[in-house]
Amino acid sequence: MAVDLLGGDHAPAVVVDGALHAVQADPSVHLLLVGPVEAAGEVLAALSPADRARVRTIGSPASRPGNTGWIESGVRAAVLAVAEGQADAVVSAGSTGATVTSAALGLGRWPGVRRPALAAVLPTATGRIVLLDVGATVDPDERALLTQARLGAAYAAVAHGIAEPRVGLLTIGTERGKGDRLRRAMPALLSGTVLPAGARYVGLVEGDDVVTGRGADVVVTDGFTGNVLLKGLETAYALITPPRNGDVPPRAATLLGVAGTVVVCHGAASGPDLAAGIALAADLHRRAAVPSIAAFLSE
Amino acid sequence: MAVDLLGGDHAPAVVVDGALHAVQADPSVHLLLVGPVEAAGEVLAALSPADRARVRTIGSPASRPGNTGWIESGVRAAVLAVAEGQADAVVSAGSTGATVTSAALGLGRWPGVRRPALAAVLPTATGRIVLLDVGATVDPDERALLTQARLGAAYAAVAHGIAEPRVGLLTIGTERGKGDRLRRAMPALLSGTVLPAGARYVGLVEGDDVVTGRGADVVVTDGFTGNVLLKGLETAYALITPPRNGDVPPRAATLLGVAGTVVVCHGAASGPDLAAGIALAADLHRRAAVPSIAAFLSE
Repeated sequence: MAVDLLGGDHAPAVVVDGALHAVQADPSVHLLLVGPVEAAGEVLAALSPADRARVRTIGSPASRPGNTGWIESGVRAAVLAVAEGQADAVVSAGSTGATVTSAALGLGRWPGVRRPALAAVLPTATGRIVLLDVGATVDPDERALLTQARLGAAYAAVAHGIAEPRVGLLTIGTERGKGDRLRRAMPALLSGTVLPAGARYVGLVEGDDVVTGRGADVVVTDGFTGNVLLKGLETAYALITPPRNGDVPPRAATLLGVAGTVVVCHGAASGPDLAAGIALAADLHRRAAVPSIAAFLSE
Repeated sequence: MAVDLLGGDHAPAVVVDGALHAVQADPSVHLLLVGPVEAAGEVLAALSPADRARVRTIGSPASRPGNTGWIESGVRAAVLAVAEGQADAVVSAGSTGATVTSAALGLGRWPGVRRPALAAVLPTATGRIVLLDVGATVDPDERALLTQARLGAAYAAVAHGIAEPRVGLLTIGTERGKGDRLRRAMPALLSGTVLPAGARYVGLVEGDDVVTGRGADVVVTDGFTGNVLLKGLETAYALITPPRNGDVPPRAATLLGVAGTVVVCHGAASGPDLAAGIALAADLHRRAAVPSIAAFLSE
């Protein structure tokens, strides 16, 4: 797992913390730390010799505050490591835009995907739901939302084992004519044959459906609304009790539409969030989820 | 309180239920039921003679399914009753668009307000927050968001007694360049002198801040994002425990920018939600909140 040490509002401290947690929690996880040698050294110094053997580094000059060019080059170096076969996945809490662009350029996009999408998983009262996009594309057009519907359906089928994923379009009321121009145009397009085999469009859903899980396994929206809703609900569930007891999905999103495993954590991610993002990336890689999703879509 | 009996997905049954609750819960509330005589009769039949004396009706032919023209005329009749002085406030769970249009035309808009805004109140970990717009304007321009900021600040000052309301702009990241075109244009505009006396713009906030209440008393966003976030968080708080124990704000929104008290409940509102909306309208009227907000803005 190539980890961007300088990604995030509280980097590198929380990334160091997250990397330590991730290595110690799962003896089969190997890390490639990308960033300042000082931060990587902190991780190595805190580990036992046995654990240390599972950590490699790509050193770099110390970070210079305000030099965002260098900071963003951290995720580029992590993507390059995956492209060159030195790592299996990228984990970053840095700028979403820089991560999406680096991944699209460095790993390549899937056929038919112009804009990759960030997919998050939320617990619901009845199970879990895939919400996308959560920040990669804030001003999508119809084609971008159709791509998201396809990507999200394939993710639910492969990662959640749902044979017939139900795809809903997030809007603000189910009466005809509700929603903005984009949302009013989508139902006719989604009702066609755009979704992968088994998946079906089930119509309009609202904010409450993302909590109850009623009616849909996948909820499609623009990256602005999706990001706001995700951060609101995740924080509500963190302060209080999630609607369903049991395993809470990691607070990290998976980039869909690029030829590699890329996990994006919040800019404000904590150490445990980073560790959960690394664990998610490792799990996706072990299950070959990303190539399976690509294969599912190309069938 | 003029109550639109045919407003809402489950009308008139839940409105009848809400009206009953509202009359029985507060001996000073008077209702003017607007809609089918059969539904109004159900309310009257279930009340004691003393309570019945506080309910009047504006009868109408029975509703005809699918005849939305008539259904929307219910809220028009309720607005007319307020305009004519037969009632002090309107409560409807019907179409938001029809309610906003009827209120703007029937009651008049405040000076400088082109689009009225719907303001909701959410509990937070530290108090409560005013979120607007939650559905009146799904495609706002810069001017509409500036109006919302003014309306929300005045609401927080008057209704919540906050001397120096802090106004935040909802977006998806606080780094420069995040958010869509509209959001990137707003900070420069909000930093000017547009806000009413005492209020100040405190910058960008994110979805999690609406839950924690950190940093802002008023959160401004477009009606699409606001509606989705409101329904998501309200449903999360209903299924689980709200972040703060104590009084939970009613699940109803106040229309700001028109010369009258208008409360909008969700289309999917329950009877207790309707009753809470009626109680909110009565409370706003007793406190002369709407004229106070208008006066606050014109100072």
